[in-house]
Amino acid sequence: MSILVVGSVAFDTVRTPFGEGREVLGGSATHFAVSASFWTPVRLVAVVGEDFTDEHREPLRLRSVDLAGLATAKGRTFRWAGEYGDDLNTARTLDTQLNVFAEFRPEIPHGWHDTPLLFLANIDPELQWEVLEKVHGAKLVAADTMNYWIASKPAALEKLLTRVDLFLVNDAEIRQLTGERNLVRAAESLLAKGPAAVVVKRGEHGVVVFDRNGAFALPAYPLRVVKDPTGAGDAFAGGFLGYLSSRGLDGERDLRRAAVVGSVMASYQVEDFSLDRVLKLTEPEIRERYEDFSRLTRFDPLP
Amino acid sequence: MSILVVGSVAFDTVRTPFGEGREVLGGSATHFAVSASFWTPVRLVAVVGEDFTDEHREPLRLRSVDLAGLATAKGRTFRWAGEYGDDLNTARTLDTQLNVFAEFRPEIPHGWHDTPLLFLANIDPELQWEVLEKVHGAKLVAADTMNYWIASKPAALEKLLTRVDLFLVNDAEIRQLTGERNLVRAAESLLAKGPAAVVVKRGEHGVVVFDRNGAFALPAYPLRVVKDPTGAGDAFAGGFLGYLSSRGLDGERDLRRAAVVGSVMASYQVEDFSLDRVLKLTEPEIRERYEDFSRLTRFDPLP
Repeated sequence: MSILVVGSVAFDTVRTPFGEGREVLGGSATHFAVSASFWTPVRLVAVVGEDFTDEHREPLRLRSVDLAGLATAKGRTFRWAGEYGDDLNTARTLDTQLNVFAEFRPEIPHGWHDTPLLFLANIDPELQWEVLEKVHGAKLVAADTMNYWIASKPAALEKLLTRVDLFLVNDAEIRQLTGERNLVRAAESLLAKGPAAVVVKRGEHGVVVFDRNGAFALPAYPLRVVKDPTGAGDAFAGGFLGYLSSRGLDGERDLRRAAVVGSVMASYQVEDFSLDRVLKLTEPEIRERYEDFSRLTRFDPLP
Repeated sequence: MSILVVGSVAFDTVRTPFGEGREVLGGSATHFAVSASFWTPVRLVAVVGEDFTDEHREPLRLRSVDLAGLATAKGRTFRWAGEYGDDLNTARTLDTQLNVFAEFRPEIPHGWHDTPLLFLANIDPELQWEVLEKVHGAKLVAADTMNYWIASKPAALEKLLTRVDLFLVNDAEIRQLTGERNLVRAAESLLAKGPAAVVVKRGEHGVVVFDRNGAFALPAYPLRVVKDPTGAGDAFAGGFLGYLSSRGLDGERDLRRAAVVGSVMASYQVEDFSLDRVLKLTEPEIRERYEDFSRLTRFDPLP
């Protein structure tokens, strides 16, 4: 099965205690696409500016990401600059230049309207809705968002939730969105709005998946080196949905495996800047860390 | 096997968004003892004031905690008052009255010097050392601490670490103690000082156990209701060490089970104020939540 992702392609300038990446390839759709590409064919819908060269396309092409939906508009590519302090959990945004992204109206290439799995990465929920309507053949729709949209377009988000099967949020966002501090009740209130599963990303604390059968919780992999957390959430989503796609969108057992695969991809993502680590990944490395997760979390029944 | 715990017995006044407990029975040794008592015989060493009545002793007696080491001194019992906001992870201390605890010099009753398992709950590390020296027959020594001692008596803590087998700390404390922000490297630096295992308590994010074989990570149980987090860390320690004690201090497999048992006890602890929930616990309930933890965390290998 294929996945269609709509989101941002950007140049990031990131400072962390471990170094700096200047105008490196980033954006939610980029990180998602590269991560998912290890599992399933990926179609990318986004916009870049005239400064986005063939060289910049190369990493995505190497991963066989279909770029027929990557439009080029007059102007400069979206830029984000941020820094992380010792607490690598939260980025401080230093600069955002929307550039061509300000006028982004996603065009779905011919033949992509029935892509089975659709991922609406973090963009304006009104655009997410537009894409959702256009990709009418999707069997499964997943969406992400961020604090900015929760605050500025709550009604559009509420509407989106009624049509989304899998909703991905982080710890702070789910509390902001539901006004509920308790995570279980916050997830229940989102599940009541439509999604079959709510995936709460907790950064260095792992992930919890809530669905009608209960919860699945997985700690993050304890890494000795975290160089740059940028893109971790998108790499998670890419692994999560890429795996589900490769399995034909199967049931709960696969939802759990998918959350582990997502965590594996995110754990590699943060080991270096931009796509530096992920592009070097091999299948044995992915399988090895999956088994590491199993060793990390398994315990025996009480005697 | 028996456990000897030295720590505080206190009257707590606690306010949370879910209610208030006024002058309720608390203290690290109390919460530890009650929790551990579900698994193993417990001997308690602490001090109370003349205001500590037989009625106050009753819950501990009901759990068959041996109170031969509970001294009564002239004056009032240690009092702590604190409150939790919406973020139930951190308490704000409103008042601390050390009272008889200020002059506490732990006396070890006759016949207790060779108790196989010794838990040094959060008290002055110099007193912890004194008790460690006196209970010379202990086969396994575990210790807890807090930010106050890390800041005020780092040398005494460093010394203690060379003689402790299991060291329990929380997230913030291990970073403060080691000056290392990365959890893996922080744990490695503590392991290098002596302990065979370092247990990092992360509140609502669960627990990670580091030893020479690697790490075991367990998420916290997602609860719909958390009324009062006071005593969660001590209930965890009680379950953790109580279980190890019941198993004769066995190897890594039991260390993992012990961390799950600790998490089970902590999850019940926070469901109500003081000892209100824990005192009502039954063995089937404990086993049921252990199985809930298994359901919460298990996943299959990749196909």
